[in-house]
Amino acid sequence: MTNKAVHYSDYLQLDKILNAQELESDKLSLHAHDEMLFIMIHQAYELWFKQVLFEIDSAIAIMHQPMNDNSPELQTIVHRFNRCVTILKVLVHQIDIMETMTPMDFLDFRDMLRPASGFQSWQFKTIEAKLGLKFEHRHGQEYYTAQLRPQQVEIIKAAEHEKSLLELVNSWLERMPFFEEPENWENFKGLEGKNGTHTYWATYRECYRQSLSEAEFGNLAYFDDIFLQSDTLKTENGSLSAKANRAALFIMLYRGYPILQLPFQLLNSLLEIDEQLSIWRYRHMSMVQRIIGTRLGTGGSSGRDYLKAALDKHYIFKEIARLTSFLIERRKLPELSPEMEKRLGFIK
Amino acid sequence: MTNKAVHYSDYLQLDKILNAQELESDKLSLHAHDEMLFIMIHQAYELWFKQVLFEIDSAIAIMHQPMNDNSPELQTIVHRFNRCVTILKVLVHQIDIMETMTPMDFLDFRDMLRPASGFQSWQFKTIEAKLGLKFEHRHGQEYYTAQLRPQQVEIIKAAEHEKSLLELVNSWLERMPFFEEPENWENFKGLEGKNGTHTYWATYRECYRQSLSEAEFGNLAYFDDIFLQSDTLKTENGSLSAKANRAALFIMLYRGYPILQLPFQLLNSLLEIDEQLSIWRYRHMSMVQRIIGTRLGTGGSSGRDYLKAALDKHYIFKEIARLTSFLIERRKLPELSPEMEKRLGFIK
Amino acid sequence: MTNKAVHYSDYLQLDKILNAQELESDKLSLHAHDEMLFIMIHQAYELWFKQVLFEIDSAIAIMHQPMNDNSPELQTIVHRFNRCVTILKVLVHQIDIMETMTPMDFLDFRDMLRPASGFQSWQFKTIEAKLGLKFEHRHGQEYYTAQLRPQQVEIIKAAEHEKSLLELVNSWLERMPFFEEPENWENFKGLEGKNGTHTYWATYRECYRQSLSEAEFGNLAYFDDIFLQSDTLKTENGSLSAKANRAALFIMLYRGYPILQLPFQLLNSLLEIDEQLSIWRYRHMSMVQRIIGTRLGTGGSSGRDYLKAALDKHYIFKEIARLTSFLIERRKLPELSPEMEKRLGFIK
Amino acid sequence: MTNKAVHYSDYLQLDKILNAQELESDKLSLHAHDEMLFIMIHQAYELWFKQVLFEIDSAIAIMHQPMNDNSPELQTIVHRFNRCVTILKVLVHQIDIMETMTPMDFLDFRDMLRPASGFQSWQFKTIEAKLGLKFEHRHGQEYYTAQLRPQQVEIIKAAEHEKSLLELVNSWLERMPFFEEPENWENFKGLEGKNGTHTYWATYRECYRQSLSEAEFGNLAYFDDIFLQSDTLKTENGSLSAKANRAALFIMLYRGYPILQLPFQLLNSLLEIDEQLSIWRYRHMSMVQRIIGTRLGTGGSSGRDYLKAALDKHYIFKEIARLTSFLIERRKLPELSPEMEKRLGFIK
Repeated sequence: MTNKAVHYSDYLQLDKILNAQELESDKLSLHAHDEMLFIMIHQAYELWFKQVLFEIDSAIAIMHQPMNDNSPELQTIVHRFNRCVTILKVLVHQIDIMETMTPMDFLDFRDMLRPASGFQSWQFKTIEAKLGLKFEHRHGQEYYTAQLRPQQVEIIKAAEHEKSLLELVNSWLERMPFFEEPENWENFKGLEGKNGTHTYWATYRECYRQSLSEAEFGNLAYFDDIFLQSDTLKTENGSLSAKANRAALFIMLYRGYPILQLPFQLLNSLLEIDEQLSIWRYRHMSMVQRIIGTRLGTGGSSGRDYLKAALDKHYIFKEIARLTSFLIERRKLPELSPEMEKRLGFIK
Repeated sequence: MTNKAVHYSDYLQLDKILNAQELESDKLSLHAHDEMLFIMIHQAYELWFKQVLFEIDSAIAIMHQPMNDNSPELQTIVHRFNRCVTILKVLVHQIDIMETMTPMDFLDFRDMLRPASGFQSWQFKTIEAKLGLKFEHRHGQEYYTAQLRPQQVEIIKAAEHEKSLLELVNSWLERMPFFEEPENWENFKGLEGKNGTHTYWATYRECYRQSLSEAEFGNLAYFDDIFLQSDTLKTENGSLSAKANRAALFIMLYRGYPILQLPFQLLNSLLEIDEQLSIWRYRHMSMVQRIIGTRLGTGGSSGRDYLKAALDKHYIFKEIARLTSFLIERRKLPELSPEMEKRLGFIK
Repeated sequence: MTNKAVHYSDYLQLDKILNAQELESDKLSLHAHDEMLFIMIHQAYELWFKQVLFEIDSAIAIMHQPMNDNSPELQTIVHRFNRCVTILKVLVHQIDIMETMTPMDFLDFRDMLRPASGFQSWQFKTIEAKLGLKFEHRHGQEYYTAQLRPQQVEIIKAAEHEKSLLELVNSWLERMPFFEEPENWENFKGLEGKNGTHTYWATYRECYRQSLSEAEFGNLAYFDDIFLQSDTLKTENGSLSAKANRAALFIMLYRGYPILQLPFQLLNSLLEIDEQLSIWRYRHMSMVQRIIGTRLGTGGSSGRDYLKAALDKHYIFKEIARLTSFLIERRKLPELSPEMEKRLGFIK
Repeated sequence: MTNKAVHYSDYLQLDKILNAQELESDKLSLHAHDEMLFIMIHQAYELWFKQVLFEIDSAIAIMHQPMNDNSPELQTIVHRFNRCVTILKVLVHQIDIMETMTPMDFLDFRDMLRPASGFQSWQFKTIEAKLGLKFEHRHGQEYYTAQLRPQQVEIIKAAEHEKSLLELVNSWLERMPFFEEPENWENFKGLEGKNGTHTYWATYRECYRQSLSEAEFGNLAYFDDIFLQSDTLKTENGSLSAKANRAALFIMLYRGYPILQLPFQLLNSLLEIDEQLSIWRYRHMSMVQRIIGTRLGTGGSSGRDYLKAALDKHYIFKEIARLTSFLIERRKLPELSPEMEKRLGFIK
């Protein structure tokens, strides 16, 4: 197929990769041994960030095409998200390596790096943006643009303006064809179907209500707000429409049916990506705290605060995570009609 | 030495261990498959908590005896703390197992367990108390006594009243003989030694001051407050005296000298214990959030809040961690006197 | 649902779990600190072995009933096998804890345990048997029965005589309905279908042949031997029939089709179980080597050799692993007939 | 200190790092998605190999200077070796990422890479050589030189001809001053000291003999062969002299004494490096087997065999590991003379 013999070191462009470490401390003839580690670990992080972006981009490209139930793409997407999770777990583990650098060892070259900072990783911010983090939900907005170059900000901005994975997930959920819905939620009152019969969701709402203890009754209003709106309505600051929320909840409730197995795995992989990103931020924060400490007014200190605030604010798929609160026990689920059961299975 | 042959299953008392799983859902003839996992993982946690307690107890017993510089005990303590760190890392990893339980699977038996809760682990609270967490610093005090049996509360209370590891570390640091100190810090003014010469700490304070940028100048007041007090004075809510803080800082600054190598490893292992406990709480919190969700007013929800608050408040060795902020670059350290250098080395 | 309030420590039977550690060295008043760890880690292993057995038993029970394509069981099985993989990864990690015990520390109580040995874990041998390891394929047969009690041998023997997971996987693969096969492989010659047209496998064989380099041509005989036999024929010492091998290969080749996604995940999870067991044996072996060394004629030494031999011989699903060698590139795969494509998809 | 402001992406040379991935499959317009991962993971490995080499080089440089007991270097070396262990653990974990590539996905571009192969990593072979692997002990000698470029072979050859870490460890152990030895082992007979009194090692040998069961008696000949030779004599194929072996055994037996604590940690870190390298080879081998399978006569297959053979043959510090077999119980150790005790402690 190809005539040219490929050599390992050319193929991997090792001349570039292995000649990209230049120590600031060496330039000042104050060789700081641990600066090499510092450079190397950040380079390893950036390599993996590129890979994660590559996987997310490929998933986004697939999700832009209306996925056919007969096509292998859903499995492909799940597989690639699970790969991202596996990569993120290694990135969390990599923090162990950074922590072999003691505070005194870091001090040997810390001042020479100013004002460079890990928060200048535009690739990481692009990952967040492509997944679905909006600029207005970012912590430390001025902070992040101040430290980046214009062309790097451009890349993130572009990602913020494209359809995010979260938005594509919303559209995909809205397209789910597998459960009966009243034809017109817009004018829908009293949770009854067009011809007066109770719909699935009217029944489900009742089951859910019964599962609540008195102290939990407030949850019902949230339920109505999230699920029982006109199809495309979203809760305040929300990204998932009522219709998408219903589809996602339905997938969680009946994940065993053949047609729902991969959709369930997809939702689950999104939660795992969020969780691993969150663990990474938390461990990153602890590491910064441990190695840099908290001198007032320095990058180190504010970096730590940034990470801490981002912990809570940068969850992307929190609306999917939230669905857990609206599940009911399997044995109390409304029975599905034979028609619905059939739709959820394979060809017979 | 012993005549009786030992058999594996007797030795491990497997008849007890492997017959200690009784499912509540089975009692109700509503077999919930995942309840077995739920029981098993908590039992595995409690086994390892017992082991951690065993290691901490042995370290505490050793530290009650004034450690002789010629004795092997310091290495023993470091070794056992590192073992605790290794165990805690596995406990963090174990959360992966718990997360294979989906919210729907947990719902199958969740209601049958009320009001049992993971916060009834008196062993974990005892670990925190033995390390040095005071009752008054605990988050959710009423909450924790309400869920425990009187005899379990007794055990924790007893641990709270014994000398904690943190207090023993303070005493050990205060006993450190290796640097010259002015004889009477009580009446110490102007950071001069008895005979008017500058002491080590006067010099160090000056070096530290020079290392601060204008924005960081406020740190100097903290420095004086923490280090330059009468020997036994502690900062507000603090557990380490000024003398102990000076010793700990000195160890960090000169860790390479033979006599300081093990003390440095000891301080480091304490920080690692804190860090692993903190990661465990964080991942535990995420897991609870993911599997239980946040129905208002339930154990799940408040459990999550409890864990979140404890994240910040239950750090035990935060005063040691804080020292990082008072380090200066190695090349700017005050020179040690030949006398001091000699004290820090081995016999010649 | 249940009136009796459940308490954490009763529910977990902590009185049993936490009172099941009795040190032999204490009985001899020669307290060896690390013996506690030694007991505890083996108890933790046995807890998890029980859990793995519980998951495997549940999967075996499901696979005894002919699985319906419309039922959620396939997902359940995959989920439980993946849980086993997650547990096995933690068990591998747990070896780090054991390795905090130095050889000198182990010597303090080693002689007191004779002749107890980790190879007396009947639960682990039962796991191997239930997965599909036959007695005649075990390394060190005499060795393993000699160290176990009769009733423990009985349990393993019983597992060896029941249908193993491997045998059930064979039956399940043989039942796969999704590809066209010539009606009678028994009298099948020349790889032609009944009416003279080439079958799928005749075409595939040709594609495979073309993918082989000259040096690899010997593989074709293996191919014929494994796949192109009468339906129920197995290769020597093999557990999978020709029909099952064809089904498994087909699943790997076309895993993207909806109906093959879960079957692919199932095959993959079996390979992961084998891989984790193998990593566990390897790390266990290194650990034994490191802590015990190799005094001639002791349990330690032969234990190490046992583990080493088992590394190669105790692979259970090696016939599934072997299929990798018979794959061809996706772009060279024979085209599927529209009829077949339809069978592999969801209802339209 | 430095005037020029440093920017994150310049500092890390991200233009090189992130523009070093060119897919062979893209050149042929047969885009294979997983080729990106394949390139990236190998680049990440090579980055970390460079870091490991950097740490080993720095340790070797330190060990070339006779280390003074008063100097911080021993701690530095231990710290850097432990860092190597931490890195190697992440490299082992990274194999999880590679294993997200299925055999079918690899087939999409496998043929396009020929004859490139992971065994062309000259950095990895250089690591082995610097640690102490001799060319004549390598498995597959012809194989390894055939795949490398002349200048890469040169680098490995140079490493093989320099003093290896293993040789430097031997010299360092021979210099250990802390135990009494008969002045002239050359003419040493009957294990008596110069003036007829029994030396430490004569006593130890007797204790060791008593600890052996009848079946283990053969070990005594090994003991004499390894330890009771003229100072610089090595066993066949051995790298450690009798004197160095005695010193290493002594360190293991009395590791608690202040002066032996760091030396013990050093020996231990070498064993951990070997163990992690070995786990890496084993998991690497399993992964190759799983993704590539075993077509006869291909790189994949022989690669797997290479790794398997290397598993046993490429242990570097096996002589240190072997010492475990010559330890005796702490309570049966010969008593040290007060003179010796004093030498092993700190200044009083």
